Amino acid sequence: MEESTRALLDSLLAGDRLALSRAITLVESSNPSAHDEAQALISQLPTDRKALHLAVTGAPGVGKSTFIDALGTYLTRLQHKVAVLAVDPSSGLSHGSILGDKTRMVRLGRDKNAYVRPSPTGGLLGGIAAATYEAALLCEAAGYDIIIIETVGVGQSEVAVRHLADFFILLLQPAAGDDLQGLKMGIVEEADLLVVNKWDTHLLKEAEKTKAVYQLTRPEGKPEVLLVSSLEDRGFDQLWKTVNLQLEAMDLHEKRSHRQVFWFMESTRRLILRRIIEENTSLFRQMEEDLRSGKRNYANAIDETMKVLCQRHHL
Amino acid sequence: MEESTRALLDSLLAGDRLALSRAITLVESSNPSAHDEAQALISQLPTDRKALHLAVTGAPGVGKSTFIDALGTYLTRLQHKVAVLAVDPSSGLSHGSILGDKTRMVRLGRDKNAYVRPSPTGGLLGGIAAATYEAALLCEAAGYDIIIIETVGVGQSEVAVRHLADFFILLLQPAAGDDLQGLKMGIVEEADLLVVNKWDTHLLKEAEKTKAVYQLTRPEGKPEVLLVSSLEDRGFDQLWKTVNLQLEAMDLHEKRSHRQVFWFMESTRRLILRRIIEENTSLFRQMEEDLRSGKRNYANAIDETMKVLCQRHHL
Repeated sequence: MEESTRALLDSLLAGDRLALSRAITLVESSNPSAHDEAQALISQLPTDRKALHLAVTGAPGVGKSTFIDALGTYLTRLQHKVAVLAVDPSSGLSHGSILGDKTRMVRLGRDKNAYVRPSPTGGLLGGIAAATYEAALLCEAAGYDIIIIETVGVGQSEVAVRHLADFFILLLQPAAGDDLQGLKMGIVEEADLLVVNKWDTHLLKEAEKTKAVYQLTRPEGKPEVLLVSSLEDRGFDQLWKTVNLQLEAMDLHEKRSHRQVFWFMESTRRLILRRIIEENTSLFRQMEEDLRSGKRNYANAIDETMKVLCQRHHL
Repeated sequence: MEESTRALLDSLLAGDRLALSRAITLVESSNPSAHDEAQALISQLPTDRKALHLAVTGAPGVGKSTFIDALGTYLTRLQHKVAVLAVDPSSGLSHGSILGDKTRMVRLGRDKNAYVRPSPTGGLLGGIAAATYEAALLCEAAGYDIIIIETVGVGQSEVAVRHLADFFILLLQPAAGDDLQGLKMGIVEEADLLVVNKWDTHLLKEAEKTKAVYQLTRPEGKPEVLLVSSLEDRGFDQLWKTVNLQLEAMDLHEKRSHRQVFWFMESTRRLILRRIIEENTSLFRQMEEDLRSGKRNYANAIDETMKVLCQRHHL
């Protein structure tokens, strides 16, 4: 291990925030030497620091940032150290909305027991999500005992969310009617806890109505839908009590172990694929040319490419 | 080519619907021999049949199926042959909602010039989306000149949508207020055309208000937001005229060529990765064991696996 990496590791383990930020930048980098440094760093992390990984998801507009700001503040008051990470696999086009503006978490942003990390910009699911897993390991090592992962709970990302967290909160907002707020039923069923946000003084009735509607969707054995007001700091005692009751019934060791295996597979796949593409750029370029010129068709190009790759790489 | 595959190809080219369904089942299959048969079939497709590929996307509840039912019926009346495919990359958990119920397209379902294909169940983005591309090629070959691809326009799937279609319609619904209906800004900007559905007699004002709000989001050079009532068959003349005007300004040959290259890359990556995983199952199993027992940590397992794979496969 390089001396500079060792120094970074030491600062990180001592809880230095700048070191943590630099280390997370390394795991998010697509630069190979940064990647090697990141891996060297991660391989040296102690295994005795174990944080709770909490995922918070919900449709855009539901108030995820405000909720995390309130929940995080509630938790630092209970002497927890809270890190917030964001994963936004769909930001490839719009280049990030989640946490793009750190000021959205006003209270946590200036809380010395909290660390808020903005979302990496763009990119594909595998890469970003593995980087988020690695960032969570770094936060653990830096002494944060609760890691909150914010994600847009729609589309593909829900799959990653299940593999990122021990506990998964789906945030809802008061709405007239009984529509599903743009959510797929799968994600509603999968959530460990449903929380209706914006249980604010002027929205009490609407929030309670939404709670009642979603209560009907809960599978047996899952806790009832909760209400919180992030603006008025209401409902967080009940929320935290419910989370902890649920956690007691879970095998967190198994979840942690599963996460490790899942992201090991994801990372390995991504790395080996990158190597193969890099080692065969001229083959792929030739095929692209043949496709564009009409010399080959789609199926034929796949067939020929697979033949060459299997021979070259003993497959 | 096997004789049975040849017979399937002949029936497909003659426009036989049962043959088309069987061929699509082949491309969706994860069975290797079915996959080989599918590739053999696709490599023999004529290249002179060129359909228009239209993607329709929008949040759940916006009325995509009803809209496609109305649009498809409008198009078959203009003597087009219309095929409808669905791609639902996020259905892994809930096991498919889109087109799960064919009866949702009541009119198209019994229209002899239309073919409606329900969504494949579950699975991951790459696989399903490539299969959808291949299914579209099969529909073209079977004589359908307009392929409509229905997808949930949230999360990761929008990325795939751009690579599946020539033209991309984002469907909206009348809503009070100016919220983004659970959509990410990126997908709104990316759409070739925004269409407010449910411009029904009792919702005229609301639909027009939504149109006005979304009109503000349109980049220069894109057509104005349109209104349709799928229930009352209103607005489709204007819609179709606008689509065609837009298409005239597009390089469809380039789009087709781009699609072919994109899905060639996707399919090749998926296939080579599968081969590597299959050829190294005992290595991966060993690493999983080492991770679970604590013998190795995450970074170390990646490192060691990459070393072995690179040596074995000359990378």
